[in-house]
Amino acid sequence: MPVLVMKFGGTSVATLDRIKRAAKRVGLEVAKGYDVIVIVSAMSGKTNELVGWVNETSPLYDAREYDAVVSSGENVTAGLMALTLQEMDVPARSWQGWQVPVKTTSAHSSARIEEIPPANIMRKFGEGMRVAVVAGFQGVSPEGRITTLGRGGSDTTAVAFAAAFEAERCDIYTDVDGVYTTDPRISSKARKLDKIAFEEMLELASLGAKVLQTRSVELAMRYKVKLRVLSSFEEPSDSAGTLVCDEEEIMENRPVSGIAYSRDEAKMTLVSIADRPGIAAAIFGPLSEAGVNVDMIIQNIAEEGRTDMTFSCPTDQVLRAENALKAARDRGEINYGELIADKDVCKISAVGIGMRSQSGVAAKMFKTLSDEGINIKVIATSEIKISVLIDRKYMELAVQALHDAFELEKAA
Amino acid sequence: MPVLVMKFGGTSVATLDRIKRAAKRVGLEVAKGYDVIVIVSAMSGKTNELVGWVNETSPLYDAREYDAVVSSGENVTAGLMALTLQEMDVPARSWQGWQVPVKTTSAHSSARIEEIPPANIMRKFGEGMRVAVVAGFQGVSPEGRITTLGRGGSDTTAVAFAAAFEAERCDIYTDVDGVYTTDPRISSKARKLDKIAFEEMLELASLGAKVLQTRSVELAMRYKVKLRVLSSFEEPSDSAGTLVCDEEEIMENRPVSGIAYSRDEAKMTLVSIADRPGIAAAIFGPLSEAGVNVDMIIQNIAEEGRTDMTFSCPTDQVLRAENALKAARDRGEINYGELIADKDVCKISAVGIGMRSQSGVAAKMFKTLSDEGINIKVIATSEIKISVLIDRKYMELAVQALHDAFELEKAA
Repeated sequence: MPVLVMKFGGTSVATLDRIKRAAKRVGLEVAKGYDVIVIVSAMSGKTNELVGWVNETSPLYDAREYDAVVSSGENVTAGLMALTLQEMDVPARSWQGWQVPVKTTSAHSSARIEEIPPANIMRKFGEGMRVAVVAGFQGVSPEGRITTLGRGGSDTTAVAFAAAFEAERCDIYTDVDGVYTTDPRISSKARKLDKIAFEEMLELASLGAKVLQTRSVELAMRYKVKLRVLSSFEEPSDSAGTLVCDEEEIMENRPVSGIAYSRDEAKMTLVSIADRPGIAAAIFGPLSEAGVNVDMIIQNIAEEGRTDMTFSCPTDQVLRAENALKAARDRGEINYGELIADKDVCKISAVGIGMRSQSGVAAKMFKTLSDEGINIKVIATSEIKISVLIDRKYMELAVQALHDAFELEKAA
Repeated sequence: MPVLVMKFGGTSVATLDRIKRAAKRVGLEVAKGYDVIVIVSAMSGKTNELVGWVNETSPLYDAREYDAVVSSGENVTAGLMALTLQEMDVPARSWQGWQVPVKTTSAHSSARIEEIPPANIMRKFGEGMRVAVVAGFQGVSPEGRITTLGRGGSDTTAVAFAAAFEAERCDIYTDVDGVYTTDPRISSKARKLDKIAFEEMLELASLGAKVLQTRSVELAMRYKVKLRVLSSFEEPSDSAGTLVCDEEEIMENRPVSGIAYSRDEAKMTLVSIADRPGIAAAIFGPLSEAGVNVDMIIQNIAEEGRTDMTFSCPTDQVLRAENALKAARDRGEINYGELIADKDVCKISAVGIGMRSQSGVAAKMFKTLSDEGINIKVIATSEIKISVLIDRKYMELAVQALHDAFELEKAA
């Protein structure tokens, strides 16, 4: 029988009633003849609670223990979903990551899936099981310890299963009915996109659109997984949601497809560092080893052999970054006068594959922000996006102004 | 280095602060030179929440999924405890049941530990790890699925580890400072016992004293594990708590050592069954297969070839018992007129190894209850205990009256 992967996010399984509603959707697909692999997240709020406990216990936690703790929420949902399906007379059982096994690297709390041997689950499908409920977000390292894939990792679990089982489609059920031109909570004019290119989705996801985890989109693009984002709160329909697909399938041709933001950014500045070859490696090597996700980087013009280096990273990695840099200074690898962390910034990005062929997008973006009196602190650009760091208090204003400026409320 | 097992129950790890306090106790033992195996329960209330969800989802749940769900609370505590110890610079790591592995039978939700190979943890001790934090209550079946040991199973985990690692002692930290003559929440005259015989402890535990799980005491008795029950809320001291030990070590010689109770009992009566050889097996076989823990059994005198059969079981197994009996009737294995479930009863027991040599205990117990106007519904006796079923509303009254009657507030 053809295999379908269905992933339900935290809000879709937040209560027993919602789990039941999700199970009914699974039942519909089983009735159509699919063997279904259901990937579940933890019940809404559970993972945050666990992460909070870990942070409070140990701000510089051992990531192996972090993973052991925060992976537990998904196990609960997987079991409850299997029980709910059984109550509906759908043969189902739950699987934890190590049971499948979902083999990952040892990079705890941001592990990558290396292999998902389909044999165990396929054998059960052969024996009449119709639904394998798999705890998302988790796997097992070569050392036999539990790993997690990073926040939102259940999306990646879903796409990886879709690839490993050559699934017909991978449906990501969430609390929004698709991908929007921007966050509807910030702009009421946000419009749902019927289709979006993998590349655009990648930028939107990595910039905080929060609909899909970046790696899940990369993986879907690489393995040609049909990926659909849809709401678990709407009536089932074949045209629901947003299809994430190849660029060629997109008819619209506008410079900007969406405005993304990332609230929890920090801007870190190393004041007065020696401007010498290898200094960037000396700074960003230790940060990378400490697991700090550095995003934007700018270096000021040097004066008398010294310069400033600015970079951005998620707010919750500031302590880690500070420690890594201080350690590097203690080891004599770098030298800096001061380390300034500005935790009150956010990132705003305009994203669109149309940018490649249309000019003036950056100018329009900067003018729009300027007209609103918003100061730009850092700029970074790529082929299909322009990002800026601004004061966090202007976040909503900037998103709304840019959405208006690029007329995203209108269908192309 | 000598190995010590320390087990912390749910209330001892209910909050991050309490986990820290427990970790400090562990640190004291590490400082004394012990390699410590810490067994942790789920944070107070967590397991009940999970069990509630399972019951709501599926009243006749698949026990394999039940186990997958309810075992998750211990994993959280184990990781948090390991992190807390690491913050105190004590080398520690967490282990889930399947990682050790704690090999159990496949009897889901009441599995028995079959083997705990010490090699993995001992190797880590050899490498400098000082504390292995193990998630209690759980193990892994030969089929590779997660099992649990039944409520309070973490005590059994602790004793089993103490036996497997030939630990010097097994300290069970809980929210009471020892074993009492009765539940101090019910009688303010309850007195702490310095020592109690394994046999008495067995009766008290199985009857609902709730201080230690029955199987943990059986196991400790069999493997001669020094077992100490003590409070995690009192200052550490070598004489704290109650030592559970051999009968020979007990100096007191009184007929009754304690009054136990079990609140959630149900009395089930099969009305008008055929009084024929094999009828008991036909009734209790299916109940056993359905996992119903039948406790007391009485059969009325037969009249015209028909009789009534009464038994007690935990309240939450009534539905399961009813279904098993109805199924047996549908299969033609038994025949009964009516099945009456009285869910409003409780069990009260007087326990004491001194009963063996002193008479009149039963008579005194019955008279005491009679004087209070309490009707006895079922009686069962063993060498060292007398149990009765009574209406639940009289539970506190009965416990207090019996505690007074046997003068348990006085040290012997």
